[in-house]
Amino acid sequence: MRAHQRCHYNRFLSASTHPVHVVLVSPRNPLNIGAAARAMANFGFDQLTVVAPYAPHWREARSAVGAPELLLNATESSTISDAVAGCTLVIGTGTLTHRKAEQKVVSLPSLAPLLQHEIARGGRIALIFGPEKHGLTRQDLSWCHLLVEVPTDARQPSMNLGQAVAVCLYELASRAFSTQPEAPAEQAPTAARSGNLDLLAQVIEETMEGAGYSPRSMQTANRHDLRLLLRRLAPNERDTRRILGLFRRILWRLSNNAN
Amino acid sequence: MRAHQRCHYNRFLSASTHPVHVVLVSPRNPLNIGAAARAMANFGFDQLTVVAPYAPHWREARSAVGAPELLLNATESSTISDAVAGCTLVIGTGTLTHRKAEQKVVSLPSLAPLLQHEIARGGRIALIFGPEKHGLTRQDLSWCHLLVEVPTDARQPSMNLGQAVAVCLYELASRAFSTQPEAPAEQAPTAARSGNLDLLAQVIEETMEGAGYSPRSMQTANRHDLRLLLRRLAPNERDTRRILGLFRRILWRLSNNAN
Repeated sequence: MRAHQRCHYNRFLSASTHPVHVVLVSPRNPLNIGAAARAMANFGFDQLTVVAPYAPHWREARSAVGAPELLLNATESSTISDAVAGCTLVIGTGTLTHRKAEQKVVSLPSLAPLLQHEIARGGRIALIFGPEKHGLTRQDLSWCHLLVEVPTDARQPSMNLGQAVAVCLYELASRAFSTQPEAPAEQAPTAARSGNLDLLAQVIEETMEGAGYSPRSMQTANRHDLRLLLRRLAPNERDTRRILGLFRRILWRLSNNAN
Repeated sequence: MRAHQRCHYNRFLSASTHPVHVVLVSPRNPLNIGAAARAMANFGFDQLTVVAPYAPHWREARSAVGAPELLLNATESSTISDAVAGCTLVIGTGTLTHRKAEQKVVSLPSLAPLLQHEIARGGRIALIFGPEKHGLTRQDLSWCHLLVEVPTDARQPSMNLGQAVAVCLYELASRAFSTQPEAPAEQAPTAARSGNLDLLAQVIEETMEGAGYSPRSMQTANRHDLRLLLRRLAPNERDTRRILGLFRRILWRLSNNAN
């Protein structure tokens, strides 16, 4: 998907390291590792740690054409404990379909304020994703302060790793780190002035008459409806001029043909 | 990623078809098609249309082991016009890195209220994703009422198709459909379906020709602009019928007078 020109995502602390570390535990599929890294680059995250990767696949992912720099700079760690040692808030993702969570579970759409709070007090955050097949184990999760849940459909709850990373990072980038979420609606075209709408209505009405479309007894009602319609459609000045031009031409042609 | 037990995503209108249609235009990579379908299943969407797919890859994607049912039930269409003909709000995704958008651009985190409004008044929505390589063309986009932008980092703005679909559907599922839509907007008139706008455009174009308003060399540009204009003005079904009636009458009169 190509992006629009107006990218107003604010990188956080570009001079320092990003406060959110992404941790992939024993990822298997090189395509998923690549996809996770690409999502990180899309949303401005650059701190990646891989725990106990399967060596051949990890090599393959890093040597892929176009691998983002953050993948080449990723840290390798043999245990989760090491990977998150420097973090103050450790968050596990998706888990335990058949077990009860032992930690507080937060829905992804509600996560942003917690992160903002943690960062405001100088904390560092780890967001941990488990292996494709079985997710994070109960032991893995024991390093987590809380679990985040992506609200998915009960009939197909299990997400692809690369997509889960994309969804989580999108949420954080757009709601925890974006200080100016809304772009100022830059120079929306000027709405048409009421007088010009009236002028347009008049020419349309003449055209309707010229085309025998408007029985005389209906004219008052039509005029009212037409006025309402033009306000509801809210053409801008340029639209109004163009539509006016079209109807003037039609009107001219109607009377010209009639002669 | 495995999901937690507590799935509190509310499916919308389980008895009826989902009001949001996902449209993939000429997708190439079978893995991306599969990933898009999986994200749809994860977030409870089931209406998929594929426009002009590359046949061998489309077959491959559909025959993949574990392909979600919605992929097997997907509709094929040869044009965007056909694919969105039944929709009242058509939304294009990511585009135009180097061009200025011709439509209103809405940031993804701000999209939910617009959808809720449209659905509350009985509308149907199409969310269109372009091909992996170059995204939607200017012509593709001319069927769109608005464009949605995923706020990405300026250094790596371009998203993988499967991840872009996941991110967009996550946002809609968790923010447009998770809560009951706002108090039922008391029967606001239904927006016109895209196919009826195409019909209206055709009759207006014939009228312009009939009135000698449209030099032949200008027709392509006019057609594009007219398509954009009608989406921007967003007449409802009743408006569309009335305007169509007026132009048909004018057209009839123009040809009748000429004889």
